[in-house]
Amino acid sequence: MTANGTQSAESPFYDIVIVGAGPVGLMLSTCLARWGYRIKHIDNRSEPTSTGRADGIQPRSLDLLRNMGLKARLMAHQPARVYEVAFWNPDTSGKDIVRTGTWASCPKFVDARYPFTTLLHQGYIERAFIDDLEKHCVQIQRPWTITDFKSDEKDNPAYPVYVELKHVDGTATETVRSKYLFGGEGARSFVRQHLRIGMRHVDPIEHVWGVMDGVVKTDFPDIKMKCTIHSQYGSIMVIPREQNMVRLYIQIASSNESDWDPKKTATQEQVQDSAKKILNPYSIEWERVEWYSVYPIGQGISDRYSLDQRVFLGGDACHTHSPKAGQGMNTAFLDALNLAWKIHVVEGGFARRDILKTYESERKGVAEDLLDFDNRYAKLFSQRSPAVNEIEAASSEVSSDRECKKEDEFIQVFKESCEFTSGYGVAYGPNEVNWSQSHQAKSSLLHPQGTILRTGYIFINSDVTRVVDANVVHLEQEIPLNGSFRIFIFAGNPFSTKTALQDLADGLSSEGSFYGSYIRSDIDAVSHHERHNPHSLFFTLCTIFAAKRTQIEISRDVPGLLARYRDHVYTDDRWDWRVPNVRASAHAKMGFNEERGAIAVVRPDGHVGAVVGLAKGSGTINALNEYFSAFCTKKLAVVST
Amino acid sequence: MTANGTQSAESPFYDIVIVGAGPVGLMLSTCLARWGYRIKHIDNRSEPTSTGRADGIQPRSLDLLRNMGLKARLMAHQPARVYEVAFWNPDTSGKDIVRTGTWASCPKFVDARYPFTTLLHQGYIERAFIDDLEKHCVQIQRPWTITDFKSDEKDNPAYPVYVELKHVDGTATETVRSKYLFGGEGARSFVRQHLRIGMRHVDPIEHVWGVMDGVVKTDFPDIKMKCTIHSQYGSIMVIPREQNMVRLYIQIASSNESDWDPKKTATQEQVQDSAKKILNPYSIEWERVEWYSVYPIGQGISDRYSLDQRVFLGGDACHTHSPKAGQGMNTAFLDALNLAWKIHVVEGGFARRDILKTYESERKGVAEDLLDFDNRYAKLFSQRSPAVNEIEAASSEVSSDRECKKEDEFIQVFKESCEFTSGYGVAYGPNEVNWSQSHQAKSSLLHPQGTILRTGYIFINSDVTRVVDANVVHLEQEIPLNGSFRIFIFAGNPFSTKTALQDLADGLSSEGSFYGSYIRSDIDAVSHHERHNPHSLFFTLCTIFAAKRTQIEISRDVPGLLARYRDHVYTDDRWDWRVPNVRASAHAKMGFNEERGAIAVVRPDGHVGAVVGLAKGSGTINALNEYFSAFCTKKLAVVST
Repeated sequence: MTANGTQSAESPFYDIVIVGAGPVGLMLSTCLARWGYRIKHIDNRSEPTSTGRADGIQPRSLDLLRNMGLKARLMAHQPARVYEVAFWNPDTSGKDIVRTGTWASCPKFVDARYPFTTLLHQGYIERAFIDDLEKHCVQIQRPWTITDFKSDEKDNPAYPVYVELKHVDGTATETVRSKYLFGGEGARSFVRQHLRIGMRHVDPIEHVWGVMDGVVKTDFPDIKMKCTIHSQYGSIMVIPREQNMVRLYIQIASSNESDWDPKKTATQEQVQDSAKKILNPYSIEWERVEWYSVYPIGQGISDRYSLDQRVFLGGDACHTHSPKAGQGMNTAFLDALNLAWKIHVVEGGFARRDILKTYESERKGVAEDLLDFDNRYAKLFSQRSPAVNEIEAASSEVSSDRECKKEDEFIQVFKESCEFTSGYGVAYGPNEVNWSQSHQAKSSLLHPQGTILRTGYIFINSDVTRVVDANVVHLEQEIPLNGSFRIFIFAGNPFSTKTALQDLADGLSSEGSFYGSYIRSDIDAVSHHERHNPHSLFFTLCTIFAAKRTQIEISRDVPGLLARYRDHVYTDDRWDWRVPNVRASAHAKMGFNEERGAIAVVRPDGHVGAVVGLAKGSGTINALNEYFSAFCTKKLAVVST
Repeated sequence: MTANGTQSAESPFYDIVIVGAGPVGLMLSTCLARWGYRIKHIDNRSEPTSTGRADGIQPRSLDLLRNMGLKARLMAHQPARVYEVAFWNPDTSGKDIVRTGTWASCPKFVDARYPFTTLLHQGYIERAFIDDLEKHCVQIQRPWTITDFKSDEKDNPAYPVYVELKHVDGTATETVRSKYLFGGEGARSFVRQHLRIGMRHVDPIEHVWGVMDGVVKTDFPDIKMKCTIHSQYGSIMVIPREQNMVRLYIQIASSNESDWDPKKTATQEQVQDSAKKILNPYSIEWERVEWYSVYPIGQGISDRYSLDQRVFLGGDACHTHSPKAGQGMNTAFLDALNLAWKIHVVEGGFARRDILKTYESERKGVAEDLLDFDNRYAKLFSQRSPAVNEIEAASSEVSSDRECKKEDEFIQVFKESCEFTSGYGVAYGPNEVNWSQSHQAKSSLLHPQGTILRTGYIFINSDVTRVVDANVVHLEQEIPLNGSFRIFIFAGNPFSTKTALQDLADGLSSEGSFYGSYIRSDIDAVSHHERHNPHSLFFTLCTIFAAKRTQIEISRDVPGLLARYRDHVYTDDRWDWRVPNVRASAHAKMGFNEERGAIAVVRPDGHVGAVVGLAKGSGTINALNEYFSAFCTKKLAVVST
């Protein structure tokens, strides 16, 4: 998986060269380093971010950071948590501002573990990744930059990418060969420009923003909330920060104004004066300014994310956002995650190289959805403000009510906005990895009736009890970010599914199955303490019974192959307020029958790939084989029923 | 508060000399260091604990560690979490063991935030404290020991304790003067022996225990749970640990056996052989033994915890426990906490010196209750095993059902056991700080009808919404461990209590009140960011309305003095499954009327001191003044109604 044994530590051969150590580069690097890849990672800054920049972590990103074991480290800095957003507008006199409403930033209908946005300085976030990388012997090489590259599979099929690097002061250069190159160097990406890939500006309006981080003294009551403030003196966005800090965004110029000048700027004092006027009748004084910056930005998307599936772009290098949306870092994380596991399954020999094409189709699709949505949202709100009862109606519903109510356009857009800003709305369209209900599969077991899980969306959260130690756990967090497909076998009633479960285990064990075909080469040396990958690096299996913990005896009720994952056997016996009247809440939340169960195949990034019924005989293993056949490297057997 | 300004950093004058850097000494030292005291802390070991020793953190101790900001640091080591205890006994043939039951280690009727025991090596726990001490410039002086001391207020009223210390290798000595001396050096305490204080062995039976930490390979299904195993080959206790480790306790000898020999021992191999036999039909093999020790222990309590309120004992120096109870470290933490805040309020000039006498009466009382309970528990279980339905009945009830059901003796003892082992059962009897319902107070507002909070017990957990930032928070954790009394003003319906709240604020502001009499001397220099102690070092005030967050405007609804604690204004608008049908769950859990509210006066250690009704006029401030008059240094005013 790493460069072959003949290459020493100083060898110029790498699995990947990563340019840029912001959120996107660091996420990619951290995933691949943990999974054993050899990485050259450079950044043209001498130090990690010390002040300013991105700082908003969405609920879904926090799930991801927790899944990587990095959340506690970030929370130790005591970030601000935004639970609500307040809207302030001119009062009837037009002179003062008044609060016209507050909304939950992640209302209950979004089933989030952490229903808030976490605000923390980007430098702390970068540090957490950098320290993790150092544990895996990856050092960011600073300040270095990329000067040239080319990619040619014919020239060198094993290491088709040739990259030239140099120290920013010009004192040193380096030439390396690599399997992949990743450009995560921000909006002015050298890699993108070198590939002559254009940026398309979806929203034709450009803006100049001023952003200021500092400590203030104010009697404005919502200084610890996220606020959007409009007044006759201008508009401002308030975002609370850790350590009594606050961030203010002020729009300095906009291309739809008559005197538009993209080079228009404002001094720190001018912005402070504007803020004072806008906040009237409240006072605001600065004790300290930590960071101040003015920058023009348009919303844009790169035309391509890759030309040859060897050189890739991600993060700001291929999409830029208004700071208002708070999307930059979160979208960057998910770009990197999406690419990381696909490189892993290709380089590990499990998936065909074509799967890498889904990086662009999935991530570019999401970026387009996001910008498209931003425009619709802005348009709707320019027409009128939402009524209080509309906000309440939209906020109070839970997702299971989704289809039951007739909704007006405002409520629909509001809900979409919450799904987007929480990160839970990210959805990948149908393709070879995401098999929707309408997928032309041979198997009739695909997507059983009643299924609530949506392919392409994130796996739904649920609480279950781990059988071996009776710990109450978050099922969606039980498998760490290990690059493996997560196969959640909801086994229903153990008496009803006994045969089906044994047939499944037999099918998995067979040599021609997707599971039996990709067994670890070092399987005989695997420790009995290995919890997640005892047999294969590409799959982790969980079994969840709709039973009480005391009813399950692993040695009796769980077939041997599944029992080997003894830390991944659970009972679905926790009460959940979203489905208060059911016996097996996790089954119910997925839409699975609590007698018969079903299987959720979840991609390594946590998105649902397929849902398959759990049936006696060979139907289930055949359906799973059919699914994985769509992108795996080997021909899998079809087992006759 | 610290030694006066004339003394340099090398001055031999200290606020306290602490001997022993185990859990009790470290907790005491950490509290006092944070509150600004000058500490000499020695330990006769060269290094902190590296292997073995105590490792069980009770739910209530975890609350405390969280309140100190140390919990995340400990959880980062991924400790084992014990949610259930399994009981194994001989099967009918007598040859093999079978599981005869499992119990929740902290059932639902105990209202715990963390309903599990956390198992983590004592060395990690010590390290968290030591690092915190270093931030406050306290270094443990190692390996040093105490050789002599005397305490004489006449000789030196300011620093009455004279202490001689020496390096354990005899190369250096030091003589210091101090206000207090604390002996936390374990069961063979020099301080205790020097004071000629005896140990009383409540349980006349002594035991020799073998304890082994290691990594095993086994098919015993409950190896990740806490287990009590009895077989014809002997008894064993299994406790899971972090990093795949397990701890086994084996009773090697007992003084109620005919061949009792307190010096009986067993080799590591003998203990392993015993374990193999006891676990039959399951196999067990050791991959690694990290620690093995054999030690005799009896349950004992020191006759006194202090003779003169200058020299104190705590932790194992004054009570020893069977390792089965898992009480050692937790009791030590609470000893230290109890003493720390009392020293703080005395040395800070708020409380009369007599309050220090309650350290012994409270903590010795708890130690006696605990040992008494252990004996009753053991006796009951020696008669018969509990029936499954009894366990279920005992486990499933919530505390509000407490008085409603007729319970058999077993259920009662089981519940008591859960309260003790969770730490939530620790209750201090009535005294000048704990005013029970039957306290002979003048005020009729004391302990209003319906109150569920019990004085002497820990404040009940509840979720509320913080008004300034809409964060959902744990109310009981909102005030950090700052040595202050925590005054929770449950303000009911803001329309109903408007006058009462204003009258209370006026009363607090008056110079002769408990609050107005103890204002910080540096009040004019206090930052507007100060959240917890803006006016006084001895009080933090929280105001909780039975309202929705959006209904409260702090500047309009909260009197100025209370509004100064703007981060401590909350709304009681969160749903709680324990009181599902009420509008204001936190009020309901305390037993407070949601219209009228009431005030909970909580001691700095989190135990409830008094409950006072919230009424118009001067009744409430008079009742509070009456309470604090019982132990504060100044004469407080009585305000006429």
